[in-house]
Amino acid sequence: MNADILKERQNATFDVEKLTNILDGGPELTKRRREIESMVLNDPDFMEEDPNFLSRSERYDQAVRKSAQMILKLREYGIADPEEIYCYKSMACGPRPEPVGLHFAMFLPTLYNQCEPEQSRKWLPLAESLRVVGTYAQTEIGHGTHLRGLETTATYDPATQEFVLNSPTVSSIKWWPGGLGKTSNHAIVLAQLYTQGNCHGLHAFIVPIRDMNTHVPLPGIVVGDIGPKFGFDEIDNGYLKMENVRIPRENMLMKYAKVEPDGTYKKPPSAKLTYGTMVFIRSMIVGESARALSKASTIAIRYSAVRHQSEIRPGEPEPQILDFQTQQYKLFPLLATAYAFIFVGQYMKDTYSRISGDINQGDFSELPELHALSAGLKAFTTWTANAAIEVCRMSCGGHGYSRSSGLPDLYVNFTPTCTYEGENTVMMLQTARYLVKSYQQAKAGQQLSGIVSYLNETDHRRVQPQPVSARPTVVDINDLASLVEIYKLRAAILVGMAAKSIQQELQHRKNQADAWNNSAIDLVKASDAHCHYVVVKLFTDKLGEIGDTAVHSVVSSLALLYALHGITVNSGDFLQAGLLSVPQVLQISVRIKELLSQLRPNAVALVDSFDIHNKKLNSVLGRYDGNVYENMFEWARRSPLNATEVHESFYKYLKPLRSKL
Amino acid sequence: MNADILKERQNATFDVEKLTNILDGGPELTKRRREIESMVLNDPDFMEEDPNFLSRSERYDQAVRKSAQMILKLREYGIADPEEIYCYKSMACGPRPEPVGLHFAMFLPTLYNQCEPEQSRKWLPLAESLRVVGTYAQTEIGHGTHLRGLETTATYDPATQEFVLNSPTVSSIKWWPGGLGKTSNHAIVLAQLYTQGNCHGLHAFIVPIRDMNTHVPLPGIVVGDIGPKFGFDEIDNGYLKMENVRIPRENMLMKYAKVEPDGTYKKPPSAKLTYGTMVFIRSMIVGESARALSKASTIAIRYSAVRHQSEIRPGEPEPQILDFQTQQYKLFPLLATAYAFIFVGQYMKDTYSRISGDINQGDFSELPELHALSAGLKAFTTWTANAAIEVCRMSCGGHGYSRSSGLPDLYVNFTPTCTYEGENTVMMLQTARYLVKSYQQAKAGQQLSGIVSYLNETDHRRVQPQPVSARPTVVDINDLASLVEIYKLRAAILVGMAAKSIQQELQHRKNQADAWNNSAIDLVKASDAHCHYVVVKLFTDKLGEIGDTAVHSVVSSLALLYALHGITVNSGDFLQAGLLSVPQVLQISVRIKELLSQLRPNAVALVDSFDIHNKKLNSVLGRYDGNVYENMFEWARRSPLNATEVHESFYKYLKPLRSKL
Repeated sequence: MNADILKERQNATFDVEKLTNILDGGPELTKRRREIESMVLNDPDFMEEDPNFLSRSERYDQAVRKSAQMILKLREYGIADPEEIYCYKSMACGPRPEPVGLHFAMFLPTLYNQCEPEQSRKWLPLAESLRVVGTYAQTEIGHGTHLRGLETTATYDPATQEFVLNSPTVSSIKWWPGGLGKTSNHAIVLAQLYTQGNCHGLHAFIVPIRDMNTHVPLPGIVVGDIGPKFGFDEIDNGYLKMENVRIPRENMLMKYAKVEPDGTYKKPPSAKLTYGTMVFIRSMIVGESARALSKASTIAIRYSAVRHQSEIRPGEPEPQILDFQTQQYKLFPLLATAYAFIFVGQYMKDTYSRISGDINQGDFSELPELHALSAGLKAFTTWTANAAIEVCRMSCGGHGYSRSSGLPDLYVNFTPTCTYEGENTVMMLQTARYLVKSYQQAKAGQQLSGIVSYLNETDHRRVQPQPVSARPTVVDINDLASLVEIYKLRAAILVGMAAKSIQQELQHRKNQADAWNNSAIDLVKASDAHCHYVVVKLFTDKLGEIGDTAVHSVVSSLALLYALHGITVNSGDFLQAGLLSVPQVLQISVRIKELLSQLRPNAVALVDSFDIHNKKLNSVLGRYDGNVYENMFEWARRSPLNATEVHESFYKYLKPLRSKL
Repeated sequence: MNADILKERQNATFDVEKLTNILDGGPELTKRRREIESMVLNDPDFMEEDPNFLSRSERYDQAVRKSAQMILKLREYGIADPEEIYCYKSMACGPRPEPVGLHFAMFLPTLYNQCEPEQSRKWLPLAESLRVVGTYAQTEIGHGTHLRGLETTATYDPATQEFVLNSPTVSSIKWWPGGLGKTSNHAIVLAQLYTQGNCHGLHAFIVPIRDMNTHVPLPGIVVGDIGPKFGFDEIDNGYLKMENVRIPRENMLMKYAKVEPDGTYKKPPSAKLTYGTMVFIRSMIVGESARALSKASTIAIRYSAVRHQSEIRPGEPEPQILDFQTQQYKLFPLLATAYAFIFVGQYMKDTYSRISGDINQGDFSELPELHALSAGLKAFTTWTANAAIEVCRMSCGGHGYSRSSGLPDLYVNFTPTCTYEGENTVMMLQTARYLVKSYQQAKAGQQLSGIVSYLNETDHRRVQPQPVSARPTVVDINDLASLVEIYKLRAAILVGMAAKSIQQELQHRKNQADAWNNSAIDLVKASDAHCHYVVVKLFTDKLGEIGDTAVHSVVSSLALLYALHGITVNSGDFLQAGLLSVPQVLQISVRIKELLSQLRPNAVALVDSFDIHNKKLNSVLGRYDGNVYENMFEWARRSPLNATEVHESFYKYLKPLRSKL
């Protein structure tokens, strides 16, 4: 092991294993996770070449091979718990998605949830045995977020009792679904349902797209890969253009809405049924943000402990770059953020599973709040983690730019979370809608409960923006409860300001829609402040659950750093609202520097606690043993461009050029 | 042409061509630029497949072919002016660098500047005819920014009158130089010079690395490609490991420092001679930031005019997303930033060429200021543009993630500017060093001139942080001169605070080096504020040169948006320093919204004014004609994964899997 990183580990003030257990949710879960990870580790079938050395087609090929292996092995080992499947797959695939991912994540669940019993009997055995491999085709080339805008049509023909599917325009071509291009032979297609001359909006249809034996596209189907992307090289995101494609009436998913043989439409009992899935997926993405940021900060902090560069004191040897204040200031707030998001992710998962029982019983009372929270936190955490990964990459100097660092792959495979499952700005506005509605209810005298209770009239009357001199200065910048309080007041004030902006716009224009759009900047800001408050609060709450004194101490420092750093970045808000005085803001800057020094000896131990195995981290810079440079050299020598000593372009272009000059 | 984008162009309030001329530096320059661009456009030799469809080796091959063509054609056309060469190459290569780029950018210029006459006679004909293809090998795998840390040695052996070059450790392997891996047969190697038992620091040596006829690596040389990166796929960034490689004494570049045949070392007259080149390159990077951001905002704004999504008013057709306030708020400040950086780039180029005459005469008096400015602005503009490109990409929804958008390529090929030619944080600290030194000089009674004159004692005595009530509120938020003034005062206050932090640290620790490191956060902040002030000032100054009323009006709105947006993002600083009151900050938010609406009708015309040809933009989303979706479909169908209808992985893995389940 590299001597620097060994020394770092020896200097840590807490027991890494204890913190790992907290992050896993208990020692038993740590143990089981490691068991599952070792199944992949010790399996020669998962030995593979670095995908960065392969062509797109080879990468796709290797990924399909792994998918097929994983399906067999998970059944062989009897791993069926979704968490454990996730754990197995993320060890086998690293940050890279798998081509049949959507078959399991969307196609099968949709069949489970939306098939009539007869449909289940037909389709489930086919799908579970992978004779039918499916995907979920909703997005079109010209339409995404706004479902009513989708153009694909499914017109019922009572004469043959079939639906006729069409992509009537270029903009209606299905675009983006994972596994659609090459892998799937069926797709659940979302289309506008027409019957008896009326459009009944979006419904789901099972559409065969390739012959089940030959895999050749069926008549009327134009299907293929949408071409190379920023990342997701393993996935055949696809296009699907349909021309008079006929499917039997029974291929419409009919558990809720129905079309009778004669074409009579029966509408579903509730529109809220798919709502739960969306909330679930967005809650899971919060956890993805935490995992991505944990990986990035592990790589950057370990390499910063190993890397020596420049000088602090003239004449002395080059110091570890982790000793530079600027490097600590880049990385430690992100490390704190990774911890914050892990705890928020745990909270979202727990909350979802707590109320999902109610949802299954038809009780949706807690869903709107969770929906608003999951939308906002999905956006808040993905935007933050997205930018943070790049800060980590650039903090590694030039080597962060090499694919061997693992950071480019991490970034390109994470960044879609800002866009998919609800574009982030749209998400922030959805949360804002809930906040403004709650604010107005509170103003109308209703007593709010839950996470928005801070908007109750009694509270928000005292949080109008006002000069700091008018507010008793009771904020203690070292007390997290006190900081949670001012984050809450900031959120309350910004929600109030956004609501007031809408009010003012209405007075000028008298049009709700334009008033909303003309207040959108304020609304996004309010949502952001709300989410920030929730994250600081949940991080603080978590500290109460940590018994071990040494662990509690270091995690408390992280929480304090997270809260104070967020204040300095948004100091304008806090000053403007009179929540902090100018001297307090200056004190906070000083306190942050102290916290950086305080966390410095534990930085490596804090990323070790994430316990991300080298295979999963997939980074020469982030290796546990710190032996970076020899391994980077070895990796480079395997690069395909080094397959021959002299590249053919020398003979073709460079040598002939000489005679022409 | 797409109807939406046509309408946008018809609604513009100014003459696009007039603004283009201003950006080019005059109508004659616009004309000449277009002439050169059309040479590439009409040249069938530059027809090529999208590199995104090729393997790494094919991309490198295609790039070498283009490099060879460009060399021939530039000579054929007699294009020799560096600006015109740049223009030709950027049309032919788009955002992608070329494998022999460093031969022209570093190898040849170093020969021109550092050869003795005899050396020039030998090497220049070889290099100019490309029999010698060279690169510049400075960075090592374990050493970058800090030149004294480089480990490669060149030890003089008077017995044979040779230098013996060695890479004594793994961390000393040369790493990163462009064209080193496969393309070059020579390298200028920077190594610690040892002679007569003493080390004389870093010197430059011409080292043959491959046989000039066979291109096979020479004995003692281990050379190759460092492997795949985030971008720069066209370039064989390389490694070089030397073991007792002997070169003649005459291969040391001896215009300044010398080693006599007997091993006597003669030191160079001045260390400032390479200083100018660094300043020049960093100044050029400011222009690169402007160009990259111009491209990104062209793509995002044109596509936002074409793309319809969601709803503002219920029941109405989906609006252009450019009508959403949130979209305007994302993109228009970036558009304003692109304009700001173009003008700053022009200023840097003009300033450099103004004083480069002095430099050649040995007059370095203006160099320190320009050095500090170019370091800071390099960091300020690249960080800003880097983040902005990603905002532009994500503002295009999912399609930004497709390689067809051009935005991923733009990002991965631009982002290295944050690291190379001086890592950005290091650059900010260099600028800070100059600012703090100037501040201390002023405090000691010296009268400063030039861009830091605002630090003069008479000025900075009145800019201590103080409550706003104590400062007469004379700021007019609609008056750019007034805004320049408060940006200046903010910079002065932050430089003062950083200097004070150093002072306080010195009182505690009495160690200059640690005091500096413990104030680094404040120092970076001070540099950032200084650069921000310079950019706002130069943008404002530029308005004075614009005669046309309509153009002046719209560019003034951009300048105002740039200045006000920068204030809201940093409102904490302005409030803290008492430079603005709380009501003024609120007014600024309202004013920004007005400016967004005001700029909306001219948004497309403002990106059209950049006049970036489709071929150079290389983006389906940013096409001038706005015909996005049909072309995206066509592009996708050419994707290599669509070469066969059924991918071989179906037969290899998916079909066999069925029988096992």
